[in-house]
Amino acid sequence: MKNTDYQSASEIVLFGALGDLSRRKLLPALYQLDQVGLLNPESRIVAVARQDSSLEDFTEFVMENLTNFVKEGLNDDVIERFKSRLVYQQLDFKDTKAYKNLADTLANGHKTRVYYFSTPPAIYGDISDGLKAAGLITPADRVVMEKPIGHCLESSKVINDQVSRYFNENQIYRIDHYLGKETVLNLLVLRFANSLFTNNWDRNSIDHVQITVAESVGIEGRWGFYDDAGQMRDMIQNHLLQILSLLAMEPPADLSAESIRAEKLKAVKALVPIDRSNVKDKTVRGQYADGYLNGNPVPGYLNEEGANTSSNTETFVAIKAEIDNWRWAGVPFYLRTGKRMPAKHSEIVVHFKEQAHNIFKDSHADLPANKLTIRLQPDEGVELQMMNKIPGIASQMHIQENKLDLSFSDTYENQRVVDAYERLMLEVINGNQSLFVSRDEVEAAWTWADSIIDAWKSTNEAPKAYAAGSWGPVSSISLIARDDRQWVE
Amino acid sequence: MKNTDYQSASEIVLFGALGDLSRRKLLPALYQLDQVGLLNPESRIVAVARQDSSLEDFTEFVMENLTNFVKEGLNDDVIERFKSRLVYQQLDFKDTKAYKNLADTLANGHKTRVYYFSTPPAIYGDISDGLKAAGLITPADRVVMEKPIGHCLESSKVINDQVSRYFNENQIYRIDHYLGKETVLNLLVLRFANSLFTNNWDRNSIDHVQITVAESVGIEGRWGFYDDAGQMRDMIQNHLLQILSLLAMEPPADLSAESIRAEKLKAVKALVPIDRSNVKDKTVRGQYADGYLNGNPVPGYLNEEGANTSSNTETFVAIKAEIDNWRWAGVPFYLRTGKRMPAKHSEIVVHFKEQAHNIFKDSHADLPANKLTIRLQPDEGVELQMMNKIPGIASQMHIQENKLDLSFSDTYENQRVVDAYERLMLEVINGNQSLFVSRDEVEAAWTWADSIIDAWKSTNEAPKAYAAGSWGPVSSISLIARDDRQWVE
Repeated sequence: MKNTDYQSASEIVLFGALGDLSRRKLLPALYQLDQVGLLNPESRIVAVARQDSSLEDFTEFVMENLTNFVKEGLNDDVIERFKSRLVYQQLDFKDTKAYKNLADTLANGHKTRVYYFSTPPAIYGDISDGLKAAGLITPADRVVMEKPIGHCLESSKVINDQVSRYFNENQIYRIDHYLGKETVLNLLVLRFANSLFTNNWDRNSIDHVQITVAESVGIEGRWGFYDDAGQMRDMIQNHLLQILSLLAMEPPADLSAESIRAEKLKAVKALVPIDRSNVKDKTVRGQYADGYLNGNPVPGYLNEEGANTSSNTETFVAIKAEIDNWRWAGVPFYLRTGKRMPAKHSEIVVHFKEQAHNIFKDSHADLPANKLTIRLQPDEGVELQMMNKIPGIASQMHIQENKLDLSFSDTYENQRVVDAYERLMLEVINGNQSLFVSRDEVEAAWTWADSIIDAWKSTNEAPKAYAAGSWGPVSSISLIARDDRQWVE
Repeated sequence: MKNTDYQSASEIVLFGALGDLSRRKLLPALYQLDQVGLLNPESRIVAVARQDSSLEDFTEFVMENLTNFVKEGLNDDVIERFKSRLVYQQLDFKDTKAYKNLADTLANGHKTRVYYFSTPPAIYGDISDGLKAAGLITPADRVVMEKPIGHCLESSKVINDQVSRYFNENQIYRIDHYLGKETVLNLLVLRFANSLFTNNWDRNSIDHVQITVAESVGIEGRWGFYDDAGQMRDMIQNHLLQILSLLAMEPPADLSAESIRAEKLKAVKALVPIDRSNVKDKTVRGQYADGYLNGNPVPGYLNEEGANTSSNTETFVAIKAEIDNWRWAGVPFYLRTGKRMPAKHSEIVVHFKEQAHNIFKDSHADLPANKLTIRLQPDEGVELQMMNKIPGIASQMHIQENKLDLSFSDTYENQRVVDAYERLMLEVINGNQSLFVSRDEVEAAWTWADSIIDAWKSTNEAPKAYAAGSWGPVSSISLIARDDRQWVE
């Protein structure tokens, strides 16, 4: 995670360059890097797609999407430079022999090649075969893999094996874009640059942790794709477990990819397995029914366009996760994520322990515990909830919880918000794997998630219905209430 | 420190009722209590003064001062009620026999009598004799003593002995008005209602503490009085040591006066003595010279009206105080107070320890430690300085110190600011000694202060000059710089 002033010249090869991720995220991210001077003058962007198209048509496609998706506005000089980097290469991904054409395109120079697999994972293997056959893989080249990497442990192994035949682990960059978010990265700084937190980050000081990732959107026209996955695979297995592992890991000795990924892996591996024996106590599955969002009626999951009306797929998950190690014994991590919730709202709340002894008990039988809240969205920031005396005479020792607040948008109002993909793309170019997920991590996460999914299957229970626009099924409240706690409002 | 809904009927007897403290602070405080309904309908205010005056004249005097000093404005109904409480009693304080007249005035009813000694301490004894002779002291009565209680340990003992002949310690309320300030009281809440601080309030977590009480005013026409005392007696011996003892005391078992005062006393008694052997290392004395404040020239201490040009009295003191107990071994408390400083500015800064291990050392060789700042004035509030990641891509792990902030004026903008005297007067009426200074505390504070004053005398050094409008002599910076620390700007 060092700064590198010089970004080496690369051939950035986008497989699936006409796809949704490419046009909304990858091309705008590359443009932004170019605009801030972080793309080497010699770097090229090689778009690879099935369609027979021309550079002119592709350039037009790029311009249209940059106009739509680069928030800060375009600069004419940069646009010209960016256009000159573009190359378009038609390719049938499954035709191993056709990769010769790509090889011709990439023949010039000795640049590092970055292969970005922005295609369905099912063809990661084909692409890898083709690249190998065309002699396009050297130890200096890198491959970026988008999620989902599999549907379960076994299928993720298949995909990883296919790519690993030709690429070493240190060449493989598995994206979880949450690791590129400012507030997620700030977790490292909060935890390890502040002794007040570093020294109180364990079972002695912390009562429990809540991680909420709420979305207000529903399925957004991709019902079939989503229904195959569900919220467990779509959100918990990757994003929430990544956040959990950054929160829970032992302090790494340094910021190297090796140190950070080893500690994150240990945290995920220490998760207490959830299986048939305890799945009812530790998890809640939900599926949204018809409801209202901001006063407007919205259809339930089974009434969405293209829905199979008998689907048992969950759109909400709450889990009481526990970590079986010295630091976290007895400290639950409550995870909660769902679609069609009242607002787009993601936050981490670290609940410190209550006071062991209360000298204010005459006026305050219960003293709220200190809480550190890390707001991921919408209003990114950090706040510490603590007790202060309320000024005034009639209530001389009247005390109240209030917030020490740091709002990023207020504090850093002149700073451009860097998109996660922009940061991650730069990290790939710089050859730094710290913010990418190792194979071991992916597999440990699947192992834990699969056990829960299998247990759900074995119980054969339908997910609990919750009204669209609510915070999930009542059982989610009960899950945490049984421990005499409650979700932060 | 419990709330008492019912304030018992009292005869509030103000000795020195025409004096400066009475007109600026005590009478306005009593009016405010009346206005918010905290003065019993039967309570009277008995003004006692040497001057031969009438109730009419005194009432006029009261009205004039309420108009000037009650910030929130007066209410006609309350004014009428307040006027009806007033009684004026001329008295020659030294004439023991004359107290019969006071006894006649106080003859009606069985109200608790609160004697407020707002006179020079030299006559506290005379007043006590007079009250006793007139049969005006019962175990239910209370006496409030204003500082200065003496000029040194011996003289304070004389004054306390004179009063203690007739009043028990539990009847004596020694005022230090700092103990009535909101932000000082909030120290108790901060320390004992927040586990994050309670559990990190010791030598394991805290590197050092700074207490600054800076005044921009000079001597304000009382040169002779001030010159007899100096900043050590005027500020350190009482206000700064009170703050220090609240910060440093062991957690009291409860909020009773007995518990709190016992713990505060232990803290003051544990102060490492400063004497001839270490006074040069541990203290700095200063005296302001001619200078500029807000661009205007202001005279030096020796050029003030009425000044004795050879005075060696200090107007600035900085001290490295140390506390010899388990909690604070090795943790200095740096005290600093002075007149004619750049601004009226008082704050406490608790510096937590630096990170033991710095994983951000490639970009940040030094990580600033966490700091908790309690602003006493002018903008009362609490802030926690901590490290966060600066958003942005070019400086990926660029981190920066910024503040989680709680401003009382923003948070409690609709709350009336309660004057310290109003609160303390109510406490006296309610019979709660928590916020008053015990004799043992006064004597322990004098013992420590006297040793420093004696050591200064023995070295016979003049105080260091500092320009009015500066933060004190350069030696004050050196005092803390020798420990590789610095005053917070």
